[in-house]
This record gives sequence, C-alpha cells and structure tokens, in this order.
Amino acid sequence: MASSITILDVLVEDIRVPTSDSLLGSDPFHRKPDYSAVVITLKTDTGLEGNSVVFNLGAGNNWIAFGVIDLASLLKGRTLAEFVHSPAKLHQLMMEHHQMRWLADGVFRMATGGLVNALWDLWAKSENKPLWELLADLSPEAIVSCIDWRYLRDALTPDEALDILRNARPGVTQRKAQMRESGPAAYSTSGWLGLDDSQICDHIKSLQQQGFRHFKSKVGSNLKQDIDRLKLLRQLIGDDSHLMIDANQIWGVDEAIEWMQQIKVYRPYWIEEPTARDDVLGYIKIREKMKHWNIGVAAGEQVPSPVIFKQLLKSGALTHCQIDATRLAGVNDVMAVILIAAKYGIPVCPHGGGIGLCNMIQHYSLWDQIAVSAQYDNRFVEYLDFLQDDVFKNPVAVHKGHYVTPEQPGWGLEMKPEFIKQFRFPTSPVWSSRSGPIGALFLA
Amino acid sequence: MASSITILDVLVEDIRVPTSDSLLGSDPFHRKPDYSAVVITLKTDTGLEGNSVVFNLGAGNNWIAFGVIDLASLLKGRTLAEFVHSPAKLHQLMMEHHQMRWLADGVFRMATGGLVNALWDLWAKSENKPLWELLADLSPEAIVSCIDWRYLRDALTPDEALDILRNARPGVTQRKAQMRESGPAAYSTSGWLGLDDSQICDHIKSLQQQGFRHFKSKVGSNLKQDIDRLKLLRQLIGDDSHLMIDANQIWGVDEAIEWMQQIKVYRPYWIEEPTARDDVLGYIKIREKMKHWNIGVAAGEQVPSPVIFKQLLKSGALTHCQIDATRLAGVNDVMAVILIAAKYGIPVCPHGGGIGLCNMIQHYSLWDQIAVSAQYDNRFVEYLDFLQDDVFKNPVAVHKGHYVTPEQPGWGLEMKPEFIKQFRFPTSPVWSSRSGPIGALFLA
Repeated sequence: MASSITILDVLVEDIRVPTSDSLLGSDPFHRKPDYSAVVITLKTDTGLEGNSVVFNLGAGNNWIAFGVIDLASLLKGRTLAEFVHSPAKLHQLMMEHHQMRWLADGVFRMATGGLVNALWDLWAKSENKPLWELLADLSPEAIVSCIDWRYLRDALTPDEALDILRNARPGVTQRKAQMRESGPAAYSTSGWLGLDDSQICDHIKSLQQQGFRHFKSKVGSNLKQDIDRLKLLRQLIGDDSHLMIDANQIWGVDEAIEWMQQIKVYRPYWIEEPTARDDVLGYIKIREKMKHWNIGVAAGEQVPSPVIFKQLLKSGALTHCQIDATRLAGVNDVMAVILIAAKYGIPVCPHGGGIGLCNMIQHYSLWDQIAVSAQYDNRFVEYLDFLQDDVFKNPVAVHKGHYVTPEQPGWGLEMKPEFIKQFRFPTSPVWSSRSGPIGALFLA
Repeated sequence: MASSITILDVLVEDIRVPTSDSLLGSDPFHRKPDYSAVVITLKTDTGLEGNSVVFNLGAGNNWIAFGVIDLASLLKGRTLAEFVHSPAKLHQLMMEHHQMRWLADGVFRMATGGLVNALWDLWAKSENKPLWELLADLSPEAIVSCIDWRYLRDALTPDEALDILRNARPGVTQRKAQMRESGPAAYSTSGWLGLDDSQICDHIKSLQQQGFRHFKSKVGSNLKQDIDRLKLLRQLIGDDSHLMIDANQIWGVDEAIEWMQQIKVYRPYWIEEPTARDDVLGYIKIREKMKHWNIGVAAGEQVPSPVIFKQLLKSGALTHCQIDATRLAGVNDVMAVILIAAKYGIPVCPHGGGIGLCNMIQHYSLWDQIAVSAQYDNRFVEYLDFLQDDVFKNPVAVHKGHYVTPEQPGWGLEMKPEFIKQFRFPTSPVWSSRSGPIGALFLA
C-alpha cells in the first residue's frame, strides 16, 4: 500500500494556548509558558494524512514552524515507499545535510523531528496500526537500519542492538496482549509552582481517586517554599508513593547538591533536571552524591542530541531516561536512545505534558516495554490531565493509574478543527489582542 | 555619548556566496558549502550603526535570519546606554527568555549572538575604539558582570575570573603597544579536500612567502588520500612548522583513535574536531590516547554552548580552545570561554574562515593575549585569504605571518554595498537561476 502514496503538500500551523494566564506548567525557569505546538500535516494523493506536532513554550514556536516549512520542500513529491524502504535515508538527508548541519541541534533537530514523526505516522496509518505496534512488529534488522550510528558505537554497536531486540522477540505477542489489558504505569505532575496548597491538595486527591500513586513537584525557586511543599506532599501521598521533584535546570552543579542536601529528608524518588541540559560532567558529579542519599537523577526533555543522551546513559549519570517526543529528530533518534538505555539497564520514563507529548510518548513506552527492554518495572510515564479532550480527536486515556493503550492508527495526533481555529497564532481572536514583543512575527 | 543613541531599526540580509563551485571550504562532512552570512545592521537615531554577521554554510542561513528578525523586536526603541549599563541584562533577556530558551542552542543561540555582537559593535564605535580595545579597557568588574554564571561556577567562579583579569592589568599598556607592532600569530588552512596536489603546493608556497609557518589540512574521508597528502604537506613545510589536521566531526570516538594511529607518523600538531561537537566523554577518551602520541586536540567552531566548552576545558579534553565568533551568544558568552581557558592554561586559537570570522576573532585573540591570559605562546589564529578584499571595507591584513592589529572602531565588519548586492539570496542574479530544494524559502 505504501508504494502508492505520494506526499503532495505539507501544512504547518503555529498554535498557541495562553496557559500563562493560569500558570499551568510554570516552573522556576519557565515562568509563564504558553503551551504551543507546530502542527504538521503531510497531505497525500490518497487522502491519508501524516500528522505530528512539535511542542514549544510560546515565543519561538514560529521559529520551528519556519524551519519545518523550509525542510518540507525536501519531502514534496516523494513517496511513502521511499521512506519505508529506508527510514534512515530521509532522516539523514535532513539531519546530516552538508550545509544545514551547521545549524546544530535545537531548532534544526526539532524541526527535522516534526517531519520525520509525520512520516512515521503516515507509515503506521498505511498499515492500519498504532505507532507502537508498527514499531513492535518491525524486525530487529529493520529497527537497527533506522539509526544513525556514526557517533553512538562507543556506547552501543548495531550488533548489540540486534541482540537486545532479538532477545525481546519471544515475549512480544504476550506483552502486547498484557499491554492491551493495562498500559504503561503513569505518574502525575501536580506540584505546579503557581498553585496554592489547597489547589494542590484537591488535585492530588482527585488523582488518587483515579488510581495514581506517584507524583511530581517543581522545586528550586525558594528553599523554604520547597520544604513546606514537599512536607505537605509527602504527608498527602504517604510513604509508599514515589515523590519525584523537578528543578528544570535552575541550579548550577554545586548549588544542586547543596539544595538537595536540604530537602533529601523528604525522600525524593528522583531529582529531575538539576542543572544544564548538556552538562554531562555536572550530571555525573550530581549523581555520585545522590547515590549516597538513595535519590535518582532524571533528565531528557531538553537533552539536545542522541550524543548527549549516550554520555548520560553510558556514564550512569542518569537513573531514569526521560525521552521526549519532540526534542530529537523523531522516531529514528528516540529508537537509538531507548536501545542505549536498555543496554545500560536504565528505565525509560518519558517526559509528558505540553501539547501532544503524552499522546506520543505512550507509543515509545509501549515499544520499550513490549519489544526492547521487555520490562515494566520502574517505568513510569508522565501524565498531565489538561489539553487533551478539547484538543485531540483521540485524547489520551488513563485507567487505574495506567495509560490505556491506544488502538487508533498512527500517533493519534489528529486535532479538533475548533481547537486549531481558536488558538491559531497570531490571527485568532484569543491572540490578536495580546501578542507581546517576541513571537509577534509569523511566517508570511 | 552612549546615552544619546537609540536603536530605531534592525536590518537583516541573507547573503550567500556560491563557494561550492570551487570547493573552497570543503571537508568530508560539509562537502559543498556556500559560505553565507546573516548580515545585521542596527540603525540608530545618530547615524552610527551597529554591525555584525552570523556565518553559515548556505542552506539554513534563512533560519538564522528569521530568528534575528524575530528577536530584533526586543531591541527596537532601546538605548545603547541600557546595554552599556548592563550588557548581561540584554544578553539574558534573549538567551534566558522564559519561553524562548526551550529552543536550546544552535539557531537560537546563534541568532542571539548576532544581535549581541551588533550591540558591542555599536558600543565600541560610540567610544571610537576597535572592539578589542574596548574589551581591554573595561575593568575586571565590568567584564565579570557581563557573564551568565549560572552553569559555570563549578569550573570558574566570578572571583577567580576577577583574579585572572586583575593579574593581567599591569602589562596591558605594554602589550597593547606590542600588539600594535605585530598582532597575533596566524596559521593557514590550506589542505582543502577539493584541491589537487599542485594547487595546494602553489598555495602553501605563496603563504610561506607571506611569512606563514603553520598550516592545517582536512582529513577523514579516505585514509590512503590522507597519508599521501600529509606526507606531501610535511615535506613542503619542513619539520619545524606545525601541521594541524581537521576531521570536521566525521568520526566516531573509537574510529578517530584508530584513524589517528595510522597517520600519527606525520606528527600532527593537533587533531581538530575528531568527533561530535558535543561528545565531552568522547573527547576525553580521544585526548587520553593522543597524549601518548604528543598530539593535541582542538575544537570549538561547532561547540554549541558555554556549558560544553566548560566541560571540555575543565576536563583537559582540549589542548587548544577554538572559540568561534558566531556560534555562541556573542561577546558575553565568548568572554566566559576565554576566561575558563585562561584558568586551565589552555591556549585560545580561534576558528576563522567563512565570512567575517577572521575579522572578528582577531579582536578576541587580542583581548585574550593583552588582558586575560597575557600570553602569546602557542596561540595561533586561523587565517584564510579569501572573501576579504571584495567583501569588507576594512579587510583583515596579515604581515609576516601575524595579523595586523585593526584600528578602525568596532568589529570592522562593514561590507561593500556591491558585495551585498551581488550575493543577496535568493533574488540576486547569482542565485535566481540556481536555488536548490533547500533554502529556497526566504523571510518575506
């Protein structure tokens, strides 16, 4: 079927929700995010569409949109068959382009990822499978051929990756069935900095009633406030639930260690993003100290490249690998990270939230737990209960603290037209009266 | 004077030269670069202009231009006095913007750098000083206040930076005078992959006649070819000249070590960019091996953040620190890197070439050698003898293998109007018949 599908056009939308009005998603560093997405649609001659999103915090969403439009000219007129034949080739045509690679990571890798992920969506739909199942059904050889190995072999060789995937094969059918009963375990981010104690109390109680046991709180802007809040949260959730904490890179290396010294008594399960996204040696130093306090170290939502992930995983600096769905150059990059994590025995606990991230990461966790690590233990997938029902035709569902394994073909990222219309930047009524000094520009 | 200057507008041009026609600048990875620049002009109410460029390899130049235009809205209406009062404040307003920082490094940091560098140009011109002299005349306290210390303190504290700068103060006047006699030592990149032996021979002889003693060649695409070329180059330049080699990130970590094993007999002075720009642990491993072979390790032109530089310098992975003029977020970022290099005793040997890089890096080397490390030894500044006379009103000059210290106010980046007109992308005649599949889009 794939052979007969040709990409005719690529639609790109800049969609922004004024979440800063309610401080949902706020943290010490990203004080007033407006959750945003570049929404990508590959239009084909068959009517089948390839969908993806790239999540952003508001200003700057237009930078990614601009990049996606520029790169999209590379895809027009190509067939899905070309991608299916060699997913690495189109991935590298963009990511390793001999002029474009000067742009390095960040905007360039994220824009590339948006298009790569839309191609995977189209492929999965052409096979009428959810993305996770397409991945779980691919042969080990096919998976390994998707990856750009140039810089990764010192941590994981293609042969080692094949071994990992082959070892997982025998249980795939059984684990697929189990996951269709109850999907990956979820945890929730509830300690938003901008909310008061009673709001957080109510929120946690409601989540506990839905079956959640593990919770995460933001820390790092004020030590006294952190101590008060962590004390409250530990009382609310009890001793058997995990309490994760997240500093969103607010600290320097030594500062992170000193701050953690003051709050370790509340037994955080992990400290997430204690320092700069690319400070490998800093993470190694922090992890050495946390080890003695029995506290994990997590990161990933801003880890800018597979090479940085490689170092964090191989060195043991991370105890939990928080792959993100739209930070890297799509499925091909994330496959590599999940395989390296499997080799070093580091559980994959993806970063969710934003717009569309939970929808996407559930597929990665399903693939990891079914066909790569083949384990469920210590694997928690972030879950946030907003920007779902009003946004997506197939919103993420949770049941008893677990994701409900999605069955619709592809990523399941199709958006409701009313949502797009309401939050299109900067022309929709929600924005036309507000736009501030940055981000006012938009691709013409 | 600064107080009376207000920024009215920011002009941004996408300028590209079809250097790929002659393979000038080619390397194993960046096979056919079209040397390009985003050309930025701050227009003020006094007629004084702030100029800078951001260098690129062709496609993607429009991404940076788009970003610069978007960020520029933050500068319009501001006074130079505001920047002079606190250069860190405007730098962080962009780089640490609570929504934009999600875009990470690459395009975002480079675009920010373009504007920051234009502000420094305007400041230097308002004081009628070349940029290097403005920096050399700033007090240690003023320099330290320019830097974002959040992630750097574990390698260098502000107090340590003050000590380095204060220790250098006594000799500043004398070293200024010496540098005005003969500027920083230069070396030249001559082994372009696309040229044949006789072209390279001619080029080196001509450079030797101009006083150059040190030369660099590209390696990494073909081992046999590398051996032949390095043998030729070593014969041409003799045993007393340094022969640098540059792999432009073509290798994985172990591959780099194996390849170097095969060519170490030609006694390269350093291997530049043996692997991925952000592979700190990879660089540490490579350096461990090179140490035994008495070969240095250099990198910097694509090191994407001060945090990666910090790790490479503190760990001893680099023996030569190749700051770039347009990769980081401008003078404020590069100041931090030069100070960290000084603390760890690593000579600063900036990356030149492209469009405008040599013009800019000479100021950094002058500042380093006059007012920071206060040393001239083992400090070589890359020099390339093309895209100067036809491009800049004040082209870079060399004399007897040394840069001629520039005296015009600012960076000296003012371009000839004919050059801009000839190479404006994509509308100038040079481009209107050529544009390929990427980069055809341009900001409307």
